[in-house]
Amino acid sequence: MRDLRGHLEHCAINTACFGFRDPLPNVIDAVARAGFGGISIWRREVDGYDIKMLARRLRDAGLKVTGYCRSTPLVTKSDAAFHNSMAENARAMSDGKALGAQFYAFVVGGVSDGTGDIAHSRMQVREGLAHLLQHGHSIDLKLAVEPLNPVYVVDRSVITRLSEALDLCDSIEGSVTTPQIGVLIDVYHTFWDVDVHQQIMRAGQAHRIFGFHVNDWLNPTQDVLNDRGMMGDGVIDLRGFRAVIERAGYQGLVEAEIFSDQNWWRKPMAETLQVLAERFQTVV
Amino acid sequence: MRDLRGHLEHCAINTACFGFRDPLPNVIDAVARAGFGGISIWRREVDGYDIKMLARRLRDAGLKVTGYCRSTPLVTKSDAAFHNSMAENARAMSDGKALGAQFYAFVVGGVSDGTGDIAHSRMQVREGLAHLLQHGHSIDLKLAVEPLNPVYVVDRSVITRLSEALDLCDSIEGSVTTPQIGVLIDVYHTFWDVDVHQQIMRAGQAHRIFGFHVNDWLNPTQDVLNDRGMMGDGVIDLRGFRAVIERAGYQGLVEAEIFSDQNWWRKPMAETLQVLAERFQTVV
Repeated sequence: MRDLRGHLEHCAINTACFGFRDPLPNVIDAVARAGFGGISIWRREVDGYDIKMLARRLRDAGLKVTGYCRSTPLVTKSDAAFHNSMAENARAMSDGKALGAQFYAFVVGGVSDGTGDIAHSRMQVREGLAHLLQHGHSIDLKLAVEPLNPVYVVDRSVITRLSEALDLCDSIEGSVTTPQIGVLIDVYHTFWDVDVHQQIMRAGQAHRIFGFHVNDWLNPTQDVLNDRGMMGDGVIDLRGFRAVIERAGYQGLVEAEIFSDQNWWRKPMAETLQVLAERFQTVV
Repeated sequence: MRDLRGHLEHCAINTACFGFRDPLPNVIDAVARAGFGGISIWRREVDGYDIKMLARRLRDAGLKVTGYCRSTPLVTKSDAAFHNSMAENARAMSDGKALGAQFYAFVVGGVSDGTGDIAHSRMQVREGLAHLLQHGHSIDLKLAVEPLNPVYVVDRSVITRLSEALDLCDSIEGSVTTPQIGVLIDVYHTFWDVDVHQQIMRAGQAHRIFGFHVNDWLNPTQDVLNDRGMMGDGVIDLRGFRAVIERAGYQGLVEAEIFSDQNWWRKPMAETLQVLAERFQTVV
């Protein structure tokens, strides 16, 4: 297991930690200055900037870009909306590639994004991913499916369990030595599952772990969407979880992603970065 | 599939639908008068009453008693607390038997009820259920484990998936023709799971479906604990779900359980009963 103490180059910051208040170039500079090795960026932050300028700034800052966040829902109410989603996602994937991202992150959409039929929603997801995988091949960008905590099945993701996401990858791509489609594993979304360790090992053996998110589950949690905890402030055994991920072969960046509108999003970015650095080195 | 129209005798009301405001004898009478076939009762409502009097009242009202709700957490912080939980649960099971309940409902406790180690918590649950199963045999009362939506893994139940609950039953009791330990399946807690239909069939084949709860998932949901929806007000395909349950062989009561502190718990019991009756016959 890697030692993160003194090795923030193994750690990445998802810009969602800061609540999208500062302009992206400032965030890039601050994350790099704090010594982190990588960053994950959202489409909303890129809007209005020249992508090549941003890509150059990221390179100059010495930051790897993990995921480009994130997909337009693949679950849709009509064929027209589905085709529109395909076009939007393909464009965003190309932007992600231009930014130098390792993968494009998929949050596939919930039951309420579609016709209301959960089985049909899952078929749309499979069809959409299979289609976009071709684009991923053509531009050499990986696709990472993020299974979400089942509490979001209605409004965010019909893909809930890690095993489900892996079954989906297998069914779309089959067994290959260098997968183009894989998973983004977030502790918040997966720690509850009795077979998560076993499924992480399976994911690692298939070389499908493209990204790894850390944060924490606060007790009590005020809001399941925007009251995520800083690593160490909640109940998840983060070090135990990372041990399994690394035993499964994952050697990529460990990325913090914290949605916290009542707490961290109200603090200065510098303070949040300082606490993130400390927690990566002591509890993750 | 049974026709519920004109057949409220197949339907039961969990008293949690009313927010525990009225004295239990009044609730029993109101549920019976509304034509329902069964009722599920909570320990807190029984406190202070003579159990034999309540049992007689239930019999006189012609109501079956489905579940007696519900267990003291089996997940505990110490051996002393665990032994205390065993004693309290055994006493409550005896009360449930005296009331004529078909089963005692287990909500096993969350990570935060114990030492913080989720794997150890699950071992405590297994040990506790195995111990209480002996008491269940001795008094001829069934034990029903209710897997809860994973959003509750920290504060309410380390058993989340139906498959997990069934694995637990199998591991404790083995394969028997007349199981004493089984599951209580609630749509709210299980509908998100990609293999729930398959696991319901498995549960039915093993004769382990002891109870079936209906309600609905509102979109948006204000609070994942106490903002459950009346059947038909949310997104769950209730009729499709019941079809699978009955195809799996379940012929017991279909029970409504709705926690709703901002809506249904503020309405008069008579109004809630009327709407429950209508929804059972039109959307379940």
